[in-house]
Amino acid sequence: MTWKDKLGLVHIYTGNGKGKTTAAFGLAVRMLGSGGKVAIVQFMKAPKAYGEQKKIEECGALIESFGLPKFVHGKPTEEDIEAAKRALARAKELASSGEWDLVIVDEVCVALGFNMLDVGEVRELIKSKAPHTELVLTGRYCPEELFELADYVTEMREIKHPYQRGVIARRGVEY
Amino acid sequence: MTWKDKLGLVHIYTGNGKGKTTAAFGLAVRMLGSGGKVAIVQFMKAPKAYGEQKKIEECGALIESFGLPKFVHGKPTEEDIEAAKRALARAKELASSGEWDLVIVDEVCVALGFNMLDVGEVRELIKSKAPHTELVLTGRYCPEELFELADYVTEMREIKHPYQRGVIARRGVEY
Repeated sequence: MTWKDKLGLVHIYTGNGKGKTTAAFGLAVRMLGSGGKVAIVQFMKAPKAYGEQKKIEECGALIESFGLPKFVHGKPTEEDIEAAKRALARAKELASSGEWDLVIVDEVCVALGFNMLDVGEVRELIKSKAPHTELVLTGRYCPEELFELADYVTEMREIKHPYQRGVIARRGVEY
Repeated sequence: MTWKDKLGLVHIYTGNGKGKTTAAFGLAVRMLGSGGKVAIVQFMKAPKAYGEQKKIEECGALIESFGLPKFVHGKPTEEDIEAAKRALARAKELASSGEWDLVIVDEVCVALGFNMLDVGEVRELIKSKAPHTELVLTGRYCPEELFELADYVTEMREIKHPYQRGVIARRGVEY
């Protein structure tokens, strides 16, 4: 029995606070540092738009981002919904293949919150994962009914954030 | 004015949930990916004991860990307290030098919780940082009086964790 045989649990990072995607990327670093294989599928985020994307790839992870360059506000377009469907299909493929020690499905809960996906589809993603693949789902708006399928659930709760006084997203910190 | 001129805020990741150190390491990846310089000082954690330490160094961060190999349980020894003092002095040196875009002081709040440091010393660390250095403090037990000195405060709140059913720390995931 190796350390990899102990893998296979499901994590959810949700809540309105800072640190959900960043914690998932931190886990990626930890898994890569242990010699594990990491794949990241991103909903809602465009490729090559964020500082962490290129870097985590350099560090040895596979990362595929399915968001459109224009961020979704309000009602998603047909194109946004199609992108989300493609992201889900890809996440399922990676999580069920058995080839990855850690699969991160970033912002999938936001896609749920925007009704771009059905919660049943995300249940299916979780249930179809390979037994020894650790799976991480992130994003605010995670419906509580998914908590029962997860082993770890952490709510990032915002106590203080500088946008309350007008600080907007900054390179290197928020993206 | 460059993007680096917008740096200089203070973050706290606290609470009993998973993802505090990992979120800080994720931020490190983001900052490195943006071309920023990152230094990490760790309290409570021994060097080369964790998967993320070697990896984040390979990714370009400076990381120095001041914990003793034997983890502190109960009352810290003189040696533990001395290690914490050294960690604090080093954190101050790095944060005040102006040479770093992001300085992470990992588990400093736990050292406070174990009374290995005085809260006044951590206030001083925050106040002595260079204006354009982004500073991140992590660890459960953060005293609320430090919240006023921070721009971001996020509580990682544990909703579910598998140790509740006997799953202990696993390589690649918890360390």
